[in-house]
Amino acid sequence: MSTTAPRRALSGTNINVNLLKAEYAVRGAIAVRSEEHRATLSHSDVPSSHGLPFDSVISANIGNPQQLDQQPITFFRQVLSILEYPALLETEGIYPEDVKARARTLLKEVGSVGAYSQSQGVAAIRKSVAAFIERRDGHPSNFADIFLTGGASSGVNTLLNTICRGPETGILIPIPQYPLYTATLALLNATAVPYYLDEPHEWSTNVPLIRSQLAKAKSDGIDVRCIAVINPGNPTGASLSEGDIEAVLDLAAEEHLVVMADEVYQTNVYRGEFHSFKKVLRNMQARKGGEKYSHVELVSLHSTSKGMVGECGHRGGYFELVNFDPEVQAQIYKLVSITLCPPVIGQCLVELMVNPPKVGEESHPRYQAEYDGIYNGLKKRSQALYSAFKSMTGVSCQDPQGAMYIFPTITLSKRAQEKAASEGKKPDEYYCLRMLDATGICVVPGSGFGQTEGTWHFRTTFLPPGTDWVDRMREFHEAFMEEFK
Amino acid sequence: MSTTAPRRALSGTNINVNLLKAEYAVRGAIAVRSEEHRATLSHSDVPSSHGLPFDSVISANIGNPQQLDQQPITFFRQVLSILEYPALLETEGIYPEDVKARARTLLKEVGSVGAYSQSQGVAAIRKSVAAFIERRDGHPSNFADIFLTGGASSGVNTLLNTICRGPETGILIPIPQYPLYTATLALLNATAVPYYLDEPHEWSTNVPLIRSQLAKAKSDGIDVRCIAVINPGNPTGASLSEGDIEAVLDLAAEEHLVVMADEVYQTNVYRGEFHSFKKVLRNMQARKGGEKYSHVELVSLHSTSKGMVGECGHRGGYFELVNFDPEVQAQIYKLVSITLCPPVIGQCLVELMVNPPKVGEESHPRYQAEYDGIYNGLKKRSQALYSAFKSMTGVSCQDPQGAMYIFPTITLSKRAQEKAASEGKKPDEYYCLRMLDATGICVVPGSGFGQTEGTWHFRTTFLPPGTDWVDRMREFHEAFMEEFK
Repeated sequence: MSTTAPRRALSGTNINVNLLKAEYAVRGAIAVRSEEHRATLSHSDVPSSHGLPFDSVISANIGNPQQLDQQPITFFRQVLSILEYPALLETEGIYPEDVKARARTLLKEVGSVGAYSQSQGVAAIRKSVAAFIERRDGHPSNFADIFLTGGASSGVNTLLNTICRGPETGILIPIPQYPLYTATLALLNATAVPYYLDEPHEWSTNVPLIRSQLAKAKSDGIDVRCIAVINPGNPTGASLSEGDIEAVLDLAAEEHLVVMADEVYQTNVYRGEFHSFKKVLRNMQARKGGEKYSHVELVSLHSTSKGMVGECGHRGGYFELVNFDPEVQAQIYKLVSITLCPPVIGQCLVELMVNPPKVGEESHPRYQAEYDGIYNGLKKRSQALYSAFKSMTGVSCQDPQGAMYIFPTITLSKRAQEKAASEGKKPDEYYCLRMLDATGICVVPGSGFGQTEGTWHFRTTFLPPGTDWVDRMREFHEAFMEEFK
Repeated sequence: MSTTAPRRALSGTNINVNLLKAEYAVRGAIAVRSEEHRATLSHSDVPSSHGLPFDSVISANIGNPQQLDQQPITFFRQVLSILEYPALLETEGIYPEDVKARARTLLKEVGSVGAYSQSQGVAAIRKSVAAFIERRDGHPSNFADIFLTGGASSGVNTLLNTICRGPETGILIPIPQYPLYTATLALLNATAVPYYLDEPHEWSTNVPLIRSQLAKAKSDGIDVRCIAVINPGNPTGASLSEGDIEAVLDLAAEEHLVVMADEVYQTNVYRGEFHSFKKVLRNMQARKGGEKYSHVELVSLHSTSKGMVGECGHRGGYFELVNFDPEVQAQIYKLVSITLCPPVIGQCLVELMVNPPKVGEESHPRYQAEYDGIYNGLKKRSQALYSAFKSMTGVSCQDPQGAMYIFPTITLSKRAQEKAASEGKKPDEYYCLRMLDATGICVVPGSGFGQTEGTWHFRTTFLPPGTDWVDRMREFHEAFMEEFK
């Protein structure tokens, strides 16, 4: 029999070491502090009695459109409301007929949205996803290869859990990256092999650089078996050219790498056009000599959280497996079955995203107007923010091409770096904390995503409405630069 | 430069070994085969041309109420429909006023259900959960200790990911168990330390037996730091007495074990009453000498998928941490933040579950009638199924006390066992496959949950409506027994 000394079983030192090592800055200390400021403001009945030098918190740290200005697309929400309460089918004068028809079709396929679906997702919805991919790419897609997910994060988790078998497994990860990747690899005790994106060239992929990182990892005994690419880029806002994608696929074919294409921002493209990895791969395979790409494994992820849908809270998404070994696919199925199924309302939202109202249908004009309004608003704000950054002292940034983010470089003086160090902070972290405390604007320091040593960045979304907050940011920045010049 | 031989990066042998080892029978081969039968039936236009000896598939393999007979509770769905489409607040004659009032309150707290919430869940909803726990137990609860989750499965995943640090970590798991536990431990490469439930004593916990398993694991160098208890039991249908729970808590205090109480079936109790681990722990702490329980860490999980709510597809749930080290709690927060937030509509359903219409409110009579109807139906069917099993040759089972399952023992002859072996199957698996192919009824073999060696069981829900399927099961059983007598 053991001692009964009153100690707990778990402490901050004896739990999962992989968890202790994992870092996730998007919702880290600065985000937590911004929530504290928000609480202070909301509990203050008398304006200005809160003691903060601002009256609102601006959450520019996270791509969360509907927390800010973006309104949901009416057609989507109308259908979802009927799925929740099918008695609404009997009402008159509330819904356009095509909304009711769509809800009826979905109810027939799904049954109750309160029932578990198949673990891989409702078959009819997966068929719609496959048809969407075919239209988008001009190449076939099989619904048996589509897995619906609870947002793309859950998909990345599933895939990395399948691919990784410990520290000897390496996954090529872009730097800067969305920290879901390194956090998940830390949890799996696998090795993130970083490859730096080419900032001066609009943050594009640089294959010679990737190749040298790969060679280095291999010489360290790492079995590098996958490359993650985020396109359009998070946090960079870059959008890859067809040539960039071909070069990555060439590398993958040669080096036996699974390509994990995080394409959740595929409709957030403001310059040029989006090229899916699937389309580019199929085009390469169709060319003369294309058989050398026949074995390339590709998984492409998409989500209802981004784009003009912006329904983060509904946790919908999917991934498509291309050319995976059927045994591996069966193991992925087993893994997703352990958590039963993705949220069914989120699955239905995937259906609506890939199969929106068509020209000639009653809901189409409103849908198109809302969609275009959101798109044009994002594009305009990305340019406004870009112009503002270009005008600030010691700030440079790339012209935003896609996604919801700008990732400017900030030049921080030696004095600012010393001040940060004296407070136990990284320079960019200190800068972002000071920005938050001075302006209420919450952004994420570049160190949360990774950056070339000795450079400092931050990521801000361009989702918050208006320009007042950009002025607040600019004033803070100039004062900070003056303070530490 | 590497060879360009056309091989894939991933195969059924080189992926995550932990995944390869994991087993999850609830949605395993038999469930997949039942889906194939369902597809065959649905594609057959001419009755009886499908070649199957049944005309419907009965999914008794999974606690999925709304796939079967159970209707959603109207109040819940009315509120959710407005949250999806707030313009419905302006309608007249569709909703009771208390539905609209509730939707308004929730929209004020949550904002858009399409926005990410705090990673731990909406604060106002966590406050409602804490208030519910206080009413249930008569002891305080703090909303800061509540984490909303995407179903209880996601909560178990979070907790085991925090607690386990490799093969040296042991978690006491009941046998039979819901296989989420062993599957998750396999993925984490941690050690499941099995403790057998006491079948002749209504599947209760047997602490001397647990103690001996614990001693054995410790002597093998395993750091056993947690005991999982499922109450009411899955797959057993047992409901623990206050004394049983006290004995487990005594053991936990003495042996420094975190208690993980899976209490998702807390309202599915048909005999006696439900005692929460939290209430029993607080009562023990309040007694003379109770300080020896002051360090006991407890986590209790609940869900919107079970009980009279039955909203599996919405993926709602929560866990409450009791007496956890703040540093550990901070790590749990970091872990959940990586996947951003649970589905927001599911969070709202948690609010409605813990805060249903009150006596005197407009929706209360309908709510109460629906709730009672579901409860009485489950109770009645559990008894009907129990009676049927008692009358079958070579079947014995415990009087069902709770949950949604009966887990009968079946006596399988040597000939049946040999026949199973000749087909490469376990005897109970063979029996269940034969049942499926003969009747269309899908149940889960006992080997999927664990059972004492040389005994054979299966788990069936008592959710399917009517008694026709029970007759089909009985006919199959008697014919099977005759065939292999």
